[in-house]
Amino acid sequence: MRLHGFFRSGASYRVRIALGMKGIPFEQTSYMLRRGDQKQPGYVALNPQGLVPTLELDDGTLMTQSIAILEWLEETHPEPAMLPKDPMQRARVRAFALAIACDIHPVQNIGVLNAVKALGHTEPEANEWARRVNSEGLDACEKMLAGVKGPFCFGDKPTMADICLVPQLVNARRFHADTSNWPRLLEAEAACNALPYFVAAAPERQPDAE
Amino acid sequence: MRLHGFFRSGASYRVRIALGMKGIPFEQTSYMLRRGDQKQPGYVALNPQGLVPTLELDDGTLMTQSIAILEWLEETHPEPAMLPKDPMQRARVRAFALAIACDIHPVQNIGVLNAVKALGHTEPEANEWARRVNSEGLDACEKMLAGVKGPFCFGDKPTMADICLVPQLVNARRFHADTSNWPRLLEAEAACNALPYFVAAAPERQPDAE
Repeated sequence: MRLHGFFRSGASYRVRIALGMKGIPFEQTSYMLRRGDQKQPGYVALNPQGLVPTLELDDGTLMTQSIAILEWLEETHPEPAMLPKDPMQRARVRAFALAIACDIHPVQNIGVLNAVKALGHTEPEANEWARRVNSEGLDACEKMLAGVKGPFCFGDKPTMADICLVPQLVNARRFHADTSNWPRLLEAEAACNALPYFVAAAPERQPDAE
Repeated sequence: MRLHGFFRSGASYRVRIALGMKGIPFEQTSYMLRRGDQKQPGYVALNPQGLVPTLELDDGTLMTQSIAILEWLEETHPEPAMLPKDPMQRARVRAFALAIACDIHPVQNIGVLNAVKALGHTEPEANEWARRVNSEGLDACEKMLAGVKGPFCFGDKPTMADICLVPQLVNARRFHADTSNWPRLLEAEAACNALPYFVAAAPERQPDAE
């Protein structure tokens, strides 16, 4: 398999973690998002959205949207599981993952920050937008875990929730969000970052890291 | 079941369609988003994100995030199915649904448009932001269906892809996006809107419609 992505892309990071969790080896092709590599015709032919990541299977099949890729990995490589067995527990895990994947990540990605700048705002103003989105979004995520036993987001095993959380916390720090309100999220992050496949997926470990 | 939502909310609309598809009766409580009802303490106690919808089961269990709710409905009420059986086909349907649920809808919702206005921009400028997001996003969705047989997004039955598409097209028109570039999306929409449960879920049919 080949992951078309970028070391700093949170959505690519999710897929790297999940591939590592399932023990699937993969190669990577890197697209420099700031330079707009992902909007070039060659890449848009792979992924009409012009977003990373795209997962390319050995037979050339292309898959897009990180959460759809995670669900496919779970269905085709069930062990170790990233979703619980009980439907209601699965819904809780997915709701947490989607609170990040829908309501935080896409609202602070490079496309949106470029749109804020195109309205006449400065880089610091765009970065403040991103800080606010991370801050408010992860405040809600902290509350979603109230009363849920750790150390991971949902109990004693990492799930799709943790796979979305860890990359988002990296972004939150990059935009100088205050993490001190999130003891439960940080507990889950620490538990994740004790696992080799979370460590291996970290941005600074990727071949394209700056 | 009780759906906490709003007639015009695209994410609430998705859940209304899915409940109708599965033949599940439900009641509704309405939150006027422009007035900020969804940010009041009473509602945030139900849903820490302060977003609609929330689905409340008869035993008081609360579920959030429309896509997580759709997945739960599919797992607990499998017929009629909103996802194909084959994992790769499921991934394609989910990728299309998530291209809307992650990369269009949250980037043009009322929270983001309020944030654009808070940066000093006018209502028409905020609406132009929403038009552009719908326009660019659905252009990519049209391309994602290139070569895929209709009349629905993915073949002869409606799926989660159609359930996300139909509400987004309502939004796209509201923000005056040009729909003429989307013949394939409009074909799917027409096929959906010939089905009674899509019709019943439409914003203008809801008790809180203005």
